[in-house]
Amino acid sequence: MPKRIAAFGEVMMRLQVPGVELLSQSSVLNYSFSGTGVNIASALSRFGHAGYLVTRLPNGPLGDAAAAYLRKLGIGADFVQRGGSYLGMYFLENGFGVRPSRVTYTNRLESSFNTAPEGTYDWEGIAASVDAAHFCGITLAMNDGVRGHMLAMAQAVKKRGGAVVFDCNYRPSLWGERGYLAARPHYERMLELADIVLMNEKDAMLTLGMNTEKETREDRLKALIPAVADKFAIRVIAGTHRDIHADNSHSLRGFIYKGGQFAFSRRLTFSVHDRIGAGDAFASGIIHGELEGFPPERSVNFAAAAGMLAHTVAGDTPMASEAEVFRAIDSRIGDVER
Amino acid sequence: MPKRIAAFGEVMMRLQVPGVELLSQSSVLNYSFSGTGVNIASALSRFGHAGYLVTRLPNGPLGDAAAAYLRKLGIGADFVQRGGSYLGMYFLENGFGVRPSRVTYTNRLESSFNTAPEGTYDWEGIAASVDAAHFCGITLAMNDGVRGHMLAMAQAVKKRGGAVVFDCNYRPSLWGERGYLAARPHYERMLELADIVLMNEKDAMLTLGMNTEKETREDRLKALIPAVADKFAIRVIAGTHRDIHADNSHSLRGFIYKGGQFAFSRRLTFSVHDRIGAGDAFASGIIHGELEGFPPERSVNFAAAAGMLAHTVAGDTPMASEAEVFRAIDSRIGDVER
Amino acid sequence: MPKRIAAFGEVMMRLQVPGVELLSQSSVLNYSFSGTGVNIASALSRFGHAGYLVTRLPNGPLGDAAAAYLRKLGIGADFVQRGGSYLGMYFLENGFGVRPSRVTYTNRLESSFNTAPEGTYDWEGIAASVDAAHFCGITLAMNDGVRGHMLAMAQAVKKRGGAVVFDCNYRPSLWGERGYLAARPHYERMLELADIVLMNEKDAMLTLGMNTEKETREDRLKALIPAVADKFAIRVIAGTHRDIHADNSHSLRGFIYKGGQFAFSRRLTFSVHDRIGAGDAFASGIIHGELEGFPPERSVNFAAAAGMLAHTVAGDTPMASEAEVFRAIDSRIGDVER
Amino acid sequence: MPKRIAAFGEVMMRLQVPGVELLSQSSVLNYSFSGTGVNIASALSRFGHAGYLVTRLPNGPLGDAAAAYLRKLGIGADFVQRGGSYLGMYFLENGFGVRPSRVTYTNRLESSFNTAPEGTYDWEGIAASVDAAHFCGITLAMNDGVRGHMLAMAQAVKKRGGAVVFDCNYRPSLWGERGYLAARPHYERMLELADIVLMNEKDAMLTLGMNTEKETREDRLKALIPAVADKFAIRVIAGTHRDIHADNSHSLRGFIYKGGQFAFSRRLTFSVHDRIGAGDAFASGIIHGELEGFPPERSVNFAAAAGMLAHTVAGDTPMASEAEVFRAIDSRIGDVER
Amino acid sequence: MPKRIAAFGEVMMRLQVPGVELLSQSSVLNYSFSGTGVNIASALSRFGHAGYLVTRLPNGPLGDAAAAYLRKLGIGADFVQRGGSYLGMYFLENGFGVRPSRVTYTNRLESSFNTAPEGTYDWEGIAASVDAAHFCGITLAMNDGVRGHMLAMAQAVKKRGGAVVFDCNYRPSLWGERGYLAARPHYERMLELADIVLMNEKDAMLTLGMNTEKETREDRLKALIPAVADKFAIRVIAGTHRDIHADNSHSLRGFIYKGGQFAFSRRLTFSVHDRIGAGDAFASGIIHGELEGFPPERSVNFAAAAGMLAHTVAGDTPMASEAEVFRAIDSRIGDVER
Amino acid sequence: MPKRIAAFGEVMMRLQVPGVELLSQSSVLNYSFSGTGVNIASALSRFGHAGYLVTRLPNGPLGDAAAAYLRKLGIGADFVQRGGSYLGMYFLENGFGVRPSRVTYTNRLESSFNTAPEGTYDWEGIAASVDAAHFCGITLAMNDGVRGHMLAMAQAVKKRGGAVVFDCNYRPSLWGERGYLAARPHYERMLELADIVLMNEKDAMLTLGMNTEKETREDRLKALIPAVADKFAIRVIAGTHRDIHADNSHSLRGFIYKGGQFAFSRRLTFSVHDRIGAGDAFASGIIHGELEGFPPERSVNFAAAAGMLAHTVAGDTPMASEAEVFRAIDSRIGDVER
Repeated sequence: MPKRIAAFGEVMMRLQVPGVELLSQSSVLNYSFSGTGVNIASALSRFGHAGYLVTRLPNGPLGDAAAAYLRKLGIGADFVQRGGSYLGMYFLENGFGVRPSRVTYTNRLESSFNTAPEGTYDWEGIAASVDAAHFCGITLAMNDGVRGHMLAMAQAVKKRGGAVVFDCNYRPSLWGERGYLAARPHYERMLELADIVLMNEKDAMLTLGMNTEKETREDRLKALIPAVADKFAIRVIAGTHRDIHADNSHSLRGFIYKGGQFAFSRRLTFSVHDRIGAGDAFASGIIHGELEGFPPERSVNFAAAAGMLAHTVAGDTPMASEAEVFRAIDSRIGDVER
Repeated sequence: MPKRIAAFGEVMMRLQVPGVELLSQSSVLNYSFSGTGVNIASALSRFGHAGYLVTRLPNGPLGDAAAAYLRKLGIGADFVQRGGSYLGMYFLENGFGVRPSRVTYTNRLESSFNTAPEGTYDWEGIAASVDAAHFCGITLAMNDGVRGHMLAMAQAVKKRGGAVVFDCNYRPSLWGERGYLAARPHYERMLELADIVLMNEKDAMLTLGMNTEKETREDRLKALIPAVADKFAIRVIAGTHRDIHADNSHSLRGFIYKGGQFAFSRRLTFSVHDRIGAGDAFASGIIHGELEGFPPERSVNFAAAAGMLAHTVAGDTPMASEAEVFRAIDSRIGDVER
Repeated sequence: MPKRIAAFGEVMMRLQVPGVELLSQSSVLNYSFSGTGVNIASALSRFGHAGYLVTRLPNGPLGDAAAAYLRKLGIGADFVQRGGSYLGMYFLENGFGVRPSRVTYTNRLESSFNTAPEGTYDWEGIAASVDAAHFCGITLAMNDGVRGHMLAMAQAVKKRGGAVVFDCNYRPSLWGERGYLAARPHYERMLELADIVLMNEKDAMLTLGMNTEKETREDRLKALIPAVADKFAIRVIAGTHRDIHADNSHSLRGFIYKGGQFAFSRRLTFSVHDRIGAGDAFASGIIHGELEGFPPERSVNFAAAAGMLAHTVAGDTPMASEAEVFRAIDSRIGDVER
Repeated sequence: MPKRIAAFGEVMMRLQVPGVELLSQSSVLNYSFSGTGVNIASALSRFGHAGYLVTRLPNGPLGDAAAAYLRKLGIGADFVQRGGSYLGMYFLENGFGVRPSRVTYTNRLESSFNTAPEGTYDWEGIAASVDAAHFCGITLAMNDGVRGHMLAMAQAVKKRGGAVVFDCNYRPSLWGERGYLAARPHYERMLELADIVLMNEKDAMLTLGMNTEKETREDRLKALIPAVADKFAIRVIAGTHRDIHADNSHSLRGFIYKGGQFAFSRRLTFSVHDRIGAGDAFASGIIHGELEGFPPERSVNFAAAAGMLAHTVAGDTPMASEAEVFRAIDSRIGDVER
Repeated sequence: MPKRIAAFGEVMMRLQVPGVELLSQSSVLNYSFSGTGVNIASALSRFGHAGYLVTRLPNGPLGDAAAAYLRKLGIGADFVQRGGSYLGMYFLENGFGVRPSRVTYTNRLESSFNTAPEGTYDWEGIAASVDAAHFCGITLAMNDGVRGHMLAMAQAVKKRGGAVVFDCNYRPSLWGERGYLAARPHYERMLELADIVLMNEKDAMLTLGMNTEKETREDRLKALIPAVADKFAIRVIAGTHRDIHADNSHSLRGFIYKGGQFAFSRRLTFSVHDRIGAGDAFASGIIHGELEGFPPERSVNFAAAAGMLAHTVAGDTPMASEAEVFRAIDSRIGDVER
Repeated sequence: MPKRIAAFGEVMMRLQVPGVELLSQSSVLNYSFSGTGVNIASALSRFGHAGYLVTRLPNGPLGDAAAAYLRKLGIGADFVQRGGSYLGMYFLENGFGVRPSRVTYTNRLESSFNTAPEGTYDWEGIAASVDAAHFCGITLAMNDGVRGHMLAMAQAVKKRGGAVVFDCNYRPSLWGERGYLAARPHYERMLELADIVLMNEKDAMLTLGMNTEKETREDRLKALIPAVADKFAIRVIAGTHRDIHADNSHSLRGFIYKGGQFAFSRRLTFSVHDRIGAGDAFASGIIHGELEGFPPERSVNFAAAAGMLAHTVAGDTPMASEAEVFRAIDSRIGDVER
């Protein structure tokens, strides 16, 4: 049965140089609108749910364009507010091979979303309308106003019995000099509210400051994730391990920890067209599995395949339907379909 | 010495989303015109022959555009009729890595080609003008009218001493529920007329319903192809085995069966830009070899290299000259030529 | 107060050659999705109402792309059905100066919309949800099945007290040899149900077969429109007179006939970028005026300005907000706004 | 009845900056292939004749591209030779309003056409195959080798009874310092061979050095054209007077002088998209009229309308069919055709 | 003799939707970099002088792209500082006919230029290197820091004997609620330093609060400009009167007031491709005239023609050479140049 | 400390078919301007030096566009002359996989650069302004005039104490039938003047006619390079060995021979986007290392990484900064940077 999910997050304008030229070589940009919340709400709509975005867009042509784009993605607009002056933006120059992609941000702290005053959103109304809510660590890094919104919404949803999903998504460049130390209390507050958390052992060690004497990635994961689940009383923790190979292909292996048990997905290896947003596709797969009551192994394989497919489409936002994800779970590369 | 070849087949408008976007993401299409007959006639023109297409195009801007495109490809227009209302079309969304390409057809059964009434074509005039004629299993799947045209043309050409080429090219989606059973009698009728046939062991097993206890692809081929050649008195049978690798490269190995002997090409492995139409390039290579009197081994290596090169160009239609194919037979990847 | 309006109509894929090249010169198409119903529902959404489309789209990539495009335009998807196989399409080659634009249709009679079986739509549910419904003479020309849908929906809406809007929109090429005679009974049936009708004196004379001895366009209008309103008990009739000038600019003057009185808009003269869909913008303006209770003169000036602005945007579909239309009513061409 | 016409002339690669940017602003070029002979042969093919080009193209990718483009335009390739090293090229920057378009040539004197050695073409074979031949003053300006080819072909065609058409087309920049004096003997030699000549009174005065005391353009025309016709025994002389207006529209009025009588076309005024090649469209109209035996007035109106339409299409080469030209003769600007 | 001019001003990234689509319709932007100072420095470089820009750009890809673009325009980079975080941006949606163009700014107050701390620029070094300096009222509207830079640079240049040019360029949207009143003291301070001023009677009335009982534009000009020149001891005042016509063409008439005398240019009427930046082209023409010692009438005609040409090129920045401007002074629209 | 380097060489217009289409398939070209000297001067500017180009460009739009492009690349224009008529050009069709890229040249011998008369350049002024000069074997292949310029400049720089860099860069297609024999004396003359030489063992064997009995590439290198250094008294010799793999990736290993010692870079393996100009990036790295006094091992690793990165950017010209090259020396492929 389709569920209703609201993601709280900023809409960013993505301005991408086509091909592999640099900003100093080209004169053309392709633009779209994205953000973690956008990706989550859109992916879940594509899986058959009603995905809403809770955000604030400016009036005027840029806000209109963003709103139209959200609708095109199938995202419900009921909780999209208009007001403020600016839209966050980022410029993307595609890398090639050994040359990495580059992202350059404009001043997102002045955006409509990041300057939304108290009272902008109707938390009770939102909480009454949804089965689950999604939050992310990028938003948590913005400012006290936005963090206040996050807590208010998470508490309202929790009180109404909705599931709270939190993706740790720590971005070092956003937290300034004190970094993990500055972030820790904010993360802990969200983890206390969360039912489903996206993270891996690195988040436990760096953001939460937990320790283990294990040395391999997998051993650390197995040591720390149960400890996090215990400490914060989290029902489900899921995440991925990624490897990047010399030929630019990536490998992804998902895990889910639930009911005291780990389940792992197959290790998927694949060529990468657009890496941005693929983590959100994995998260959407986990949320879908939980909303639909999949057994953990099915959830994590679904999520990993959704994450893999998100690397193969243009733009930040996952485009695969549930059927396409299932087909990809056992897929081998095939001949053209006609 | 250049020969004259007429291919009978539909012209399709190919509408391709550029890059790797989906139809629901993009707003631009690149268009061209293709079809098995188009590919064969064009490829043979590029090898130095006079390639003609026997088809029917609508009047009006779409028909004009298709006709101009055929001329650009070097295809003789003497047997292109105008009439009817519509052009068959297909939309192509490029895949990437594990995500397959998607082809979506419009209603081709209403096309000018598929609604051509009896008397549209002058079979005697065509037969008197050509050394060989090419037909394909896709056309065979359309309707009784088109099948009638095929038989009439094949018979006329055969009577005049021209070579009849038939490419089995079975497409499951075109034959409906009864599938192979529905197709079999039509295939058998064409095989009885054919001098040169493109197929492999799968066609023998599935379309023709033949059996073998062999288990490998190659053993089955060696068991069944001679049986087909005997049963239908076919002078030359040729075809390929294709493997698709995890890194999206393909391998191709061609065979030719003639005079009771098999010859095989080198197994070629290569990156793929556009897979559609590559089978027609192989067929063109076999036809060219036969028309020029190449020894079988030379024919099959030429055909395999022609097929390989067709994967590296944009669009359905092979673009390589005879010299370029010969160069590719022993080619290794080289530095830029200047 | 915002109202809810449902337009019944086909979604067409518009495939436009960019610039002024012909299909036989170019290799690129820009695509979008439109149709009279699309234009009406989108324009009314932009004026602040909830605009719905009642239509049927195929499954698969083309249907998905059309559905995404409708959402982007702000059209409510509640009554969009999926099923059938094909989407109607048209190719547009832009004219220049004395060279007219050319439109080439594909076989729209096989479209999902035009082959929708009885029972496809839930007329009672739709009628219960809307304040008004819009129909158009293009749809009326399709086939008996679609005409049956139209009547069923118009009757259901009327029974529930909703307003029925009918745009005569006679297209000669769609009605075959018997033309107006074939169309007349179908038009009369719709006019009997209609509360608001879009037409002018030519429709009265040609489609309805009415006569007048008047000689000028305006005199004929004043003679015939009241007669139509009387005969079919129509509350509001509105329409335009268009003049096309030697420098490719157009002039438009709107009229509205209501309560036994005519009101006329200013005669607007303007440069034209894209003429297709401008009539729908005028109709939307009239509907908006009626829904909002504008006095007739305000309605017709609003509608004419909306129609004028629709000539200045790319694509079939009007993009102006209510505020932009009001600003255009007294607009003179101004300097850049910044 | 369709006729066969061979035009002798160089194929130029046209490299056009899209939009109105300058070469120092853009990074993109659209390319096509044109030339007076190309335009004439293509236009006459579109009018239903068999148009051939007599020219020489280099081997290699540029020559292949040019040859494919000629075929696309419907030009017969029987007399297209391959050899030499280079293709003539010109860069086109579109003007806007008061800013004129700019054309920059590459070194065309080294082109395959302009370096074709004696014996390149089979004049007897060509002359035996055609009803008429077209030559132009641009070609005459190249070098002695090309002028030798022109005379040889014109003489061969004349001897076989074919019609010789000569378009004076004087380009000051091509004749160097001595200008008209250098050109005169070459022009006179062509005029002695010509049956149909395209020119106006300016050519008579400047190139041929003839005098008149008349002062208006029309009086001079009426005085000088009959004198030219007499002196060189020319059957038909035709040409145009062009006016360029402040709003960038052009007016064109064609004349034809035949059998001692002048006939004039309507004066046509129209917006201009691409002015290059429009003179060739007028010439093609005159040739078509003569080949079809039109009365002079019909010929000149047809030619003027063909010339007008050529200003409204992209590229140098006329694209109108005979039916479209006839429709344009009495055309007013109309609404979109659908 | 070429002179050295430094313009002080912000570099803005211009992000323009191609064609006439809206931001909510398109997915592509063309970008360039401009600003009043950019336009002035570039135009004067094209007239043969050494044009420098005094500005501050961020490090990173956007700053690199802006710097490369300035170099491409021929602007000297000696006084371009790097630092700060952001670049000012504006989005441009082209209007069509009655629909005006729309400009949407991002938050330019956070730009590298507008946050440059004291000590960023070496005023003495700059003043020692230049013959003239250019400032503009847009910059004056930013903040106290930037206004401080302006005054410091103007004073340094004046002390060294360089000419100070000030373009009033009042933009209502930048001055907030108190508008002209807030701006007046800042304007007066710049006028006291200025040798050459760009303005017209509206600036005198609105920004400076001066009065006249005259009623026509021209009478007011003649009454107020001498008064301004007297009050602030300004050597040269120049400006334009613009009219916008119903067919979207513009008329421009320039004036110059110098030595107690007015001189006026011809009234130029022309089609408009890109209006932004055309005022800077006029200013550049006046500066060029003054630097070269043109008589006033020659200066003002040169400036008006430069302004006119700037409307006919793509982008904000004038592209005409001195020779092209002189040619345009008496130009009529001509045929293509080849 | 930044140094001043002047590269002597031709500017070519590069006209590239976008994507992987052939010239006979596409209608669009991307253009830029490059050449060995352009690449060297631009790369060294990006490393912090002042890079100048000594060349000659035509007047007119193509020369203006080339000059603007050089400025955009950061190349000093002080020694760029204007004159002559033409610009050298080449067309580039991208290969794919087994299909190689194709380069087609226009007639560059008529270019402004290759027809520059004696006295075009001020050798003394140039030599007085620079610390080093760069020359290349491609230029050496042009004609006696250009070779005379090369020698004059190299001698002037050497006399003033500047370093002379010579890149052997032998292109077989440029030297005609006598090939290496024709080239040898010209190469020897340049080697006698050179301080730093780019070459490998193949140049020694083929161009210089030296012999060795060694069989492997590396053994031959170690045998011949010291011999060349001795014979011509060359301070530094550097170069690369390249391998091209079946999956189209390349491997590059650089060497440097200085003070009687060889140093080798790591063997770098990487995907290739645009191979043209990568050799110039390596050369720029070696020059940078020498100008900065890097130890040989650091120089050769820097140069190899610079060469590797140049394969990953669009266009001929290296775009990496010194910091980016250093980062790439130990780089592994990483995740997106944000």
